[in-house]
Amino acid sequence: MKKVAFQGEHGAFSEIASKFFFSEEVSNVPSYSFEEVFSRVKNNKVDFGIVPIENTLYGSVFETYDLLLKYSLTIVGELNLQINHYLIAQKKYKLTEIERIYSHPQALGQCSEFLSRFKRTHITPAYDTAGAAILALENKTEPSAAIASIEAAEFYDLEVLESNIQNNKENYTRFLVICQKKNDAEVLNPKTSICFELKSIPGALFKALSVFALRDIDLVKIESRPIPQKPFQYTFYVDLLGSLKDEKIILAINNLAEISNNIKKFGTYNIGETYSS
Amino acid sequence: MKKVAFQGEHGAFSEIASKFFFSEEVSNVPSYSFEEVFSRVKNNKVDFGIVPIENTLYGSVFETYDLLLKYSLTIVGELNLQINHYLIAQKKYKLTEIERIYSHPQALGQCSEFLSRFKRTHITPAYDTAGAAILALENKTEPSAAIASIEAAEFYDLEVLESNIQNNKENYTRFLVICQKKNDAEVLNPKTSICFELKSIPGALFKALSVFALRDIDLVKIESRPIPQKPFQYTFYVDLLGSLKDEKIILAINNLAEISNNIKKFGTYNIGETYSS
Repeated sequence: MKKVAFQGEHGAFSEIASKFFFSEEVSNVPSYSFEEVFSRVKNNKVDFGIVPIENTLYGSVFETYDLLLKYSLTIVGELNLQINHYLIAQKKYKLTEIERIYSHPQALGQCSEFLSRFKRTHITPAYDTAGAAILALENKTEPSAAIASIEAAEFYDLEVLESNIQNNKENYTRFLVICQKKNDAEVLNPKTSICFELKSIPGALFKALSVFALRDIDLVKIESRPIPQKPFQYTFYVDLLGSLKDEKIILAINNLAEISNNIKKFGTYNIGETYSS
Repeated sequence: MKKVAFQGEHGAFSEIASKFFFSEEVSNVPSYSFEEVFSRVKNNKVDFGIVPIENTLYGSVFETYDLLLKYSLTIVGELNLQINHYLIAQKKYKLTEIERIYSHPQALGQCSEFLSRFKRTHITPAYDTAGAAILALENKTEPSAAIASIEAAEFYDLEVLESNIQNNKENYTRFLVICQKKNDAEVLNPKTSICFELKSIPGALFKALSVFALRDIDLVKIESRPIPQKPFQYTFYVDLLGSLKDEKIILAINNLAEISNNIKKFGTYNIGETYSS
């Protein structure tokens, strides 16, 4: 059975994403951090990793972008998961009794309007939504709850106090599936991810994008991250429609190499399907 | 005396930035959140707000970008502050005794290599580096420390256990100064910040950047944020060299309006100086 590393405890959204992505049964391996997911893939401890890259309310997951560059793994797939958050607690507690709420900082951000109703409740960041469920279960001194998935409620035998508490129902997280090897699967609906450094931005970003625009290559996402050794310089990450085997993409990347540094190709994979958690 | 709202407790880097920015003496007002800073400026409770927008190691501060759009205030200045982090604790503790370290999540990220030496120490996020100093001071049950500024050590009478513990010495945070009114100061070295929505990215971002490139307007920063009601659509924030009074910038923004929605002009201000904390 293939092994898939994900960040968090059983019941995390990444594990749910893994269940949707892989048609065959896989063994999902909980990992402490995003970096542990990348490192397990790099060191062949697992076959794949699955990591969030972007949420439609909260924005990009920058650690994932930085780790893609650091570990030079291949992206072999993506999927979008509609995120539904639940406030869950032990059966003995009512909503009005809750003194502490645990969750991942991004989930806390996604439920900020709901949380603003709790004036005297302590809000405590946890490293993962499912880990938050464990903290709520294990806190013996205060009536505690967690913001997590319905699957986490089922897994840890917790009760739902309130459903769909996110600010916005149009809440999707896009996940990437990463692998040590090249993608050898057939790609019918290709998307390609690359990144590159620009020496300075004035004019340079326009020129960089022109290598794609002039060849009618569609750019569907752009993100920038600071380069640690070079203050106020950036690595740009772009997602393109098309394959690294397409001649116009090969030519565009050759052209890009004339005006930018450190181009990395993360691979070509199928545009993701959307599922509901 | 003018009042300036900043996020955090006295001794926070934002307060240090305020001291460098304002040549006259001002009253710096601690605020619980970035949103409270914006709301105090909007409701005329203070004259100015000062907020971090970008760190050269960790990246953009997205909450600030989102609040700029939400509150429609004017940017009247910026500055860069070199960030030096210190591990500080009560005088009675040695480095090897520390069981818990508090700091703001971004400061924890900036000191991740130093922190990786502490295998059995609890790392606890705090809402602010100076607030972390207070938590370290008030924790009576565990020997605790905080990652904060040297000013926070002085303010709360804590001892420095280790200096300059950030991963990278080239660690700068750029701060914006925001105001309810338009900037009426003379701007000798102008930078202008705007944002706009693109209906879809294929080709559209290239066209949007072309309105500046074709007029030789330099773009020094670009950032994108998701639009909550429109999954996988983005607001782009750009900083341009020049003034909103320059004819070529006026023409470029008129041109931009033909191909994008919801253009906001945050104002023209002097390019920031760099200071060391």
